[in-house]
Amino acid sequence: MCRWMGWFGQPVLIDEVLFKTPHGIVDQSLLSRMGAEPTNGDGFGLGWYGAGDGPGVYRSVEPAWGDANLREIAGHVESPLFLTHVRAAIGSPVQETNCHPFRHGRWLFVHNGFIADFHLLRRDLMFALDPELFPEVRGSTDSEVVFHLALTLGLEQDPIAALERTTGLIEATAERRGVKDAVQGSFGVSDGVGLWAVRYATSGQPRSLFASADVETVRGLYPDNERLQKLGHDDRLIVSEPFSDLPGAWHEIPPSTAVTLRRGEGVEMRPFRPAPAAPAVAPERSPAVSV
Amino acid sequence: MCRWMGWFGQPVLIDEVLFKTPHGIVDQSLLSRMGAEPTNGDGFGLGWYGAGDGPGVYRSVEPAWGDANLREIAGHVESPLFLTHVRAAIGSPVQETNCHPFRHGRWLFVHNGFIADFHLLRRDLMFALDPELFPEVRGSTDSEVVFHLALTLGLEQDPIAALERTTGLIEATAERRGVKDAVQGSFGVSDGVGLWAVRYATSGQPRSLFASADVETVRGLYPDNERLQKLGHDDRLIVSEPFSDLPGAWHEIPPSTAVTLRRGEGVEMRPFRPAPAAPAVAPERSPAVSV
Amino acid sequence: MCRWMGWFGQPVLIDEVLFKTPHGIVDQSLLSRMGAEPTNGDGFGLGWYGAGDGPGVYRSVEPAWGDANLREIAGHVESPLFLTHVRAAIGSPVQETNCHPFRHGRWLFVHNGFIADFHLLRRDLMFALDPELFPEVRGSTDSEVVFHLALTLGLEQDPIAALERTTGLIEATAERRGVKDAVQGSFGVSDGVGLWAVRYATSGQPRSLFASADVETVRGLYPDNERLQKLGHDDRLIVSEPFSDLPGAWHEIPPSTAVTLRRGEGVEMRPFRPAPAAPAVAPERSPAVSV
Amino acid sequence: MCRWMGWFGQPVLIDEVLFKTPHGIVDQSLLSRMGAEPTNGDGFGLGWYGAGDGPGVYRSVEPAWGDANLREIAGHVESPLFLTHVRAAIGSPVQETNCHPFRHGRWLFVHNGFIADFHLLRRDLMFALDPELFPEVRGSTDSEVVFHLALTLGLEQDPIAALERTTGLIEATAERRGVKDAVQGSFGVSDGVGLWAVRYATSGQPRSLFASADVETVRGLYPDNERLQKLGHDDRLIVSEPFSDLPGAWHEIPPSTAVTLRRGEGVEMRPFRPAPAAPAVAPERSPAVSV
Repeated sequence: MCRWMGWFGQPVLIDEVLFKTPHGIVDQSLLSRMGAEPTNGDGFGLGWYGAGDGPGVYRSVEPAWGDANLREIAGHVESPLFLTHVRAAIGSPVQETNCHPFRHGRWLFVHNGFIADFHLLRRDLMFALDPELFPEVRGSTDSEVVFHLALTLGLEQDPIAALERTTGLIEATAERRGVKDAVQGSFGVSDGVGLWAVRYATSGQPRSLFASADVETVRGLYPDNERLQKLGHDDRLIVSEPFSDLPGAWHEIPPSTAVTLRRGEGVEMRPFRPAPAAPAVAPERSPAVSV
Repeated sequence: MCRWMGWFGQPVLIDEVLFKTPHGIVDQSLLSRMGAEPTNGDGFGLGWYGAGDGPGVYRSVEPAWGDANLREIAGHVESPLFLTHVRAAIGSPVQETNCHPFRHGRWLFVHNGFIADFHLLRRDLMFALDPELFPEVRGSTDSEVVFHLALTLGLEQDPIAALERTTGLIEATAERRGVKDAVQGSFGVSDGVGLWAVRYATSGQPRSLFASADVETVRGLYPDNERLQKLGHDDRLIVSEPFSDLPGAWHEIPPSTAVTLRRGEGVEMRPFRPAPAAPAVAPERSPAVSV
Repeated sequence: MCRWMGWFGQPVLIDEVLFKTPHGIVDQSLLSRMGAEPTNGDGFGLGWYGAGDGPGVYRSVEPAWGDANLREIAGHVESPLFLTHVRAAIGSPVQETNCHPFRHGRWLFVHNGFIADFHLLRRDLMFALDPELFPEVRGSTDSEVVFHLALTLGLEQDPIAALERTTGLIEATAERRGVKDAVQGSFGVSDGVGLWAVRYATSGQPRSLFASADVETVRGLYPDNERLQKLGHDDRLIVSEPFSDLPGAWHEIPPSTAVTLRRGEGVEMRPFRPAPAAPAVAPERSPAVSV
Repeated sequence: MCRWMGWFGQPVLIDEVLFKTPHGIVDQSLLSRMGAEPTNGDGFGLGWYGAGDGPGVYRSVEPAWGDANLREIAGHVESPLFLTHVRAAIGSPVQETNCHPFRHGRWLFVHNGFIADFHLLRRDLMFALDPELFPEVRGSTDSEVVFHLALTLGLEQDPIAALERTTGLIEATAERRGVKDAVQGSFGVSDGVGLWAVRYATSGQPRSLFASADVETVRGLYPDNERLQKLGHDDRLIVSEPFSDLPGAWHEIPPSTAVTLRRGEGVEMRPFRPAPAAPAVAPERSPAVSV
């Protein structure tokens, strides 16, 4: 369910990465090879940093492959850092407020995967949110709640640590409610300066996640590929699945791993370990209410 | 903000009431005379009883006046009881899950008006919901929360009493949070058998609400009006504003009044009095969560 | 590209055929087995006969599988005769006026397939339309032009003969313009009384088309299948691809064949033979215009 | 019907002009003061020059005032030259291909007004198009046909002269078909370098059109208005109606006038005189077609 990608590097026309790349994310919306579902046609979103204040976000309920406006924006907006997400809805409505990326201030967030039996956990998790953030949840996906939990737990100070706390909290709550295998997926986060990605599942194999290899290596492997020769020293891609079959050009991110990209610092990986937490259990009902 | 209407009577092509009536609800979407805003173009919805299980609901984010599909449905579906709502959004996103009528089982609900400073109250009120109903709130309007509060407080047993309890609870909560003039508006509710409507404001003049007069009277007043001559003995309309300027054909529902329509029983009115309630105040944060 | 189905029989909730049938047309929108493309997510349409004047048509640019309103309409509208179409756009925009079925008065029309190099033929073919019908073409598909050509050539008097003339005209025009293999596809037509279907390709194998077998046979083959036991004597389905793998329940319509369904008359098949025609070649430019 | 505006000057965040200006074009979509209709809620479009090849175009069928994506694009895209249009549909469907601006290569085109009885003229005018341009007409508005006629008649060489020929051709054709008062409106055209605008009606008062006054004058008149002080020497606006009531800041373009804006050359006006033309009458039917 869902595929996403992040571009981190020199400013490019978004088009170059979204449409002009073989088996790019838009192709994956129509036919994904490695996703849980082959079709990711239940809306999409593009969040980009560039002109103006904070990131811009374009979201639509139409499939990415057929959305004329996405082609226009991609073909006429340059950005050094953007996240795109194509959605395969599993239960929640197809509406723009359910399309990723989600945004808070300068922050963008995408998720591929799910919280198991989310309808059993939604209320508990919503009440664990910072009350200030509560009314900011405008859609009905699990992912948006995860993002706001992470914001509650310090995303803006330390994204990976906050996601470890969030994952721990969700797992503890799920256990309390008798829900198994609570967290599944990959996460992408950015503030316009850095890009963070996580691949994790409570149990079993998490959704796939790849990082583009060192640019020099890639260029050396494919000296005749014009597009790859244009890659700059700092250019990196994080993707749910590789854009094309180029052996050596993509590194699979191992399960339970967090990736950090910062300007001039290359790709940094470290283990991702959910932080122990008490379950977030909301009282069963406001005592004021009785019929 | 918003206009709505309910038809209760003989089965008619919805078209007859929606489009073929001068200054009908669709005209009001483009130019309302008595609404708080002249334009109600931020989506709309139609809920109807007829074939199939429970009510059907068609909702769209396009303005009602331009939606080709609404004309098709209205022109090809018959119903003895339906509710239509045209929306003027005030803050919450234009999306189908924010369009009225809202539905739960056999029940439909529409609202014209608002809960004051709803962002300050949303969390408290969500917390007061029956936990089973919590995940059913899929949009971000105040109206959807009001509906689920009313369901929590017995709407399916006694709609008017439940709305009195709901209003009392909201007012108490608002007072506790320092929010004034909490509830404003008119409400419409149906289960496919009866139709209930309420006109109420915590203070000041509530949104307008009208019921069509006794059918015999209307026919007598306008003996040459073909459309009115077709009205059956039991046919009634409840509307935010009258469809056209026909003196004597419409009764204004007084403020703080509840209206009940049941087959063969005419229009019954009684005072609407919010029930005293303790405020619904949610704990400030799940104790499990601390950064 | 595209899949369609027609129901012809007793009045049913559309739902029964659209959503409650294994591998029904809505499933096919997400994953077609026999179509030229696996995904038919570029909009859809439903045209039905029932209440009101002429057929109702609901069309949407969202994929059929995710459209909440389609489920509502299907679940609450009964019809003895309806056509549904799911679209895989090939070049022309995803917009409601490009979604099938197309309508003219009481007539509905669907098409699965294409006119080869249509951009080279569009002007000639538009020019061959009855001038009264010219402004009725509101979208940009080949199919809508084919329908209006067939109306020009007598569809309302004899649907199959008109489609034979239309096909002949298109083939002659294509030949004149150097376009090969002009016509490909299956067509479905109804006036609310009869249902006509054609399977044809100028050369090669035409798009697949199936008719449900004689009801008694089907019931006998699957005595334990409740849904099939409910089929009435006259109930028939015409489909681009069978709903499920039930040997004996579906007859493949042979290439170059026209099918006619009329109440009480079963399925009638006859060869489909394009009528010889002169090409429809439009003058190169209005003589009034020169720069 | 419809309102439009063009910005021509220094690169600005589109936002500044679209949303942050009192009574800007988006406000006019909800409540126009000088338009033929107060509400222009039947879709809109934004065409801008900047990054990428040729202009980008974002079009939507939702009202401009409620479209979240328009706010995002406007807030995150800079452009020195853009055209925006808000639509009040009169008869033709609300679909993206009917939203202005229309585009051909580097050219953008907007229109406020109408061709009288267009359904009587559409066929004649379509056959007057350059056959190469015929399949480029993808929607069903009069405006799109006018644009392609102007392209046929030399828009890319001399926009004003081409619009004079186009107007003459339409008027001659209308007269031949017995249609009066054929052309009404204002037109805006750009190639990313210059901006051209025309105000014209065959008879009577044409739709309103204004140009912003000389920047120095405007600054002098309103020395305390921060927004106006930021205007650069070359900055100009062309608008269907002034953004706010600032006496002296706007010049009304007289009827039958063409305006040309070029970098460093200020505003140039000259009379707009339709060129004499023979009517564009299409033969009544392709001789090949007879039933």
